[in-house]
Amino acid sequence: MKRIEYFTRCAGEPAPLEKSVRRVVRFNEVDPMNIMWHGHYASFFEDARIALGDAYGIGYQDFYRHGFIIPVRRMQIDYLSPLQFGREYEIKARLFYTEAARLDYDFTVLDETGSVHARGCTVQLILDKEQNLLLAKPAFFEAFCQKWRGGKL
Amino acid sequence: MKRIEYFTRCAGEPAPLEKSVRRVVRFNEVDPMNIMWHGHYASFFEDARIALGDAYGIGYQDFYRHGFIIPVRRMQIDYLSPLQFGREYEIKARLFYTEAARLDYDFTVLDETGSVHARGCTVQLILDKEQNLLLAKPAFFEAFCQKWRGGKL
Amino acid sequence: MKRIEYFTRCAGEPAPLEKSVRRVVRFNEVDPMNIMWHGHYASFFEDARIALGDAYGIGYQDFYRHGFIIPVRRMQIDYLSPLQFGREYEIKARLFYTEAARLDYDFTVLDETGSVHARGCTVQLILDKEQNLLLAKPAFFEAFCQKWRGGKL
Amino acid sequence: MKRIEYFTRCAGEPAPLEKSVRRVVRFNEVDPMNIMWHGHYASFFEDARIALGDAYGIGYQDFYRHGFIIPVRRMQIDYLSPLQFGREYEIKARLFYTEAARLDYDFTVLDETGSVHARGCTVQLILDKEQNLLLAKPAFFEAFCQKWRGGKL
Repeated sequence: MKRIEYFTRCAGEPAPLEKSVRRVVRFNEVDPMNIMWHGHYASFFEDARIALGDAYGIGYQDFYRHGFIIPVRRMQIDYLSPLQFGREYEIKARLFYTEAARLDYDFTVLDETGSVHARGCTVQLILDKEQNLLLAKPAFFEAFCQKWRGGKL
Repeated sequence: MKRIEYFTRCAGEPAPLEKSVRRVVRFNEVDPMNIMWHGHYASFFEDARIALGDAYGIGYQDFYRHGFIIPVRRMQIDYLSPLQFGREYEIKARLFYTEAARLDYDFTVLDETGSVHARGCTVQLILDKEQNLLLAKPAFFEAFCQKWRGGKL
Repeated sequence: MKRIEYFTRCAGEPAPLEKSVRRVVRFNEVDPMNIMWHGHYASFFEDARIALGDAYGIGYQDFYRHGFIIPVRRMQIDYLSPLQFGREYEIKARLFYTEAARLDYDFTVLDETGSVHARGCTVQLILDKEQNLLLAKPAFFEAFCQKWRGGKL
Repeated sequence: MKRIEYFTRCAGEPAPLEKSVRRVVRFNEVDPMNIMWHGHYASFFEDARIALGDAYGIGYQDFYRHGFIIPVRRMQIDYLSPLQFGREYEIKARLFYTEAARLDYDFTVLDETGSVHARGCTVQLILDKEQNLLLAKPAFFEAFCQKWRGGKL
């Protein structure tokens, strides 16, 4: 199966930011087919997305403090190989640089041998508290992106 | 197995209020033992508790509108016979009258033959928005209880 | 926002099969932003997919009885407008005809005014019980598809 | 609030076995009241129960390998103080010695200051694969209990 790329990176754009977390599949996450139910991957992705956001000060709560919410507008999940009860997996999130006022994340779920079990992505928009869609990045996030472009993170 | 009574009813107290809902066990609620996972009963009970609260205007959102929250302080579940994927069950909630400032619910989960699969109860306390525990019922709920005692619901 | 089409329909192929279910957003499905958490849509879609499969005898359990499993290989969700606690939504599933050995579903989540809150799709592959990917439809499903093509469902 | 004891320990019985795990409250576990939803505690308890069972070779999968299942027959939860999003808690499980053919666990959920947020218990019965209730412990578990009584674990 060929490598899936959810986002294209333009020339001159900085490399994506990365963060990994580890998570063990719970008994109640396993379905009658004895594999993790496909709906739980959203929570796996979210663990890694939140960890990256917290690590860089651009998480859901950081946006909220500045008066913005960042709802998920699209999610895609590609299931390559099932996850097993009791086994630990690495979930790697990458945040892609974009000029647009949004957050483009992709995700990879790997086992301890490095074998890839799933990939996916989420796209989040930025709204103010009156639910208006932002067309430009809010100031604190633009400042963050400038550092990122400048290689100063 | 003998009948479980979670709450005692004192002489002169009005009969409990009742409300039933129906719910089908979902694929993702079934665990690797092919029965509904024991942790999902809390949501089954909540469906019936919310339906009763809404029917009588004493639900979580009614309390909230009056400035109160009603967190669950205790829950007990007795699992008698497992629930199966795809099958529909009746969940019956009963709210017991009490002089105390709290909400005492019990629950019964039955199949279409009337066979009982689970019983349980929740006890909810009443807090104001500063998280202070109420020792007396708030006025709107006391008024409701008076009607209940008077047989005027 | 323009209409999203997840699957293309070739000339001469029969119309998709349709089935709708209704579902109320539960208290425990709502997140701290006071809207249904984005991960729960997988369960909403599954309700409609299972209802359609059961209605036509081509559900997960029907495949299983014939010796096959039908894991989800891809899921995409487009979130257009959030879902609110206590409100009922219609979830419409459509199964698209395809010559390939797979199940292509799309989904629409609507409120009672007909306004669309979300769209999405799932693609399921067909495996035998030794986890081998089927390249052709199993006999019982091919027979079903013939009737479908012939307008005899 | 006084200390809750779910199980009584008879003279001469060995001390309970203990095991703790740590867990962070997820975004999707938080309800509209901004605290962890009361139904998720079952999963918190299960994390600690599974960790203890695995540590001692008497977990759900160990019983299963010997031909037995150990369904939860009763669960009780006492909610003392809510759990907050993003905060890490310790969940301590204790398995109590009993002559009966069952598993008596109690649980304590604490924050990093040692403050107790919840207590609870589960009682599990032992069934064979024809769903017959065991009145005596299965041999492998009786052997384990002998070591436990003898202080040889």
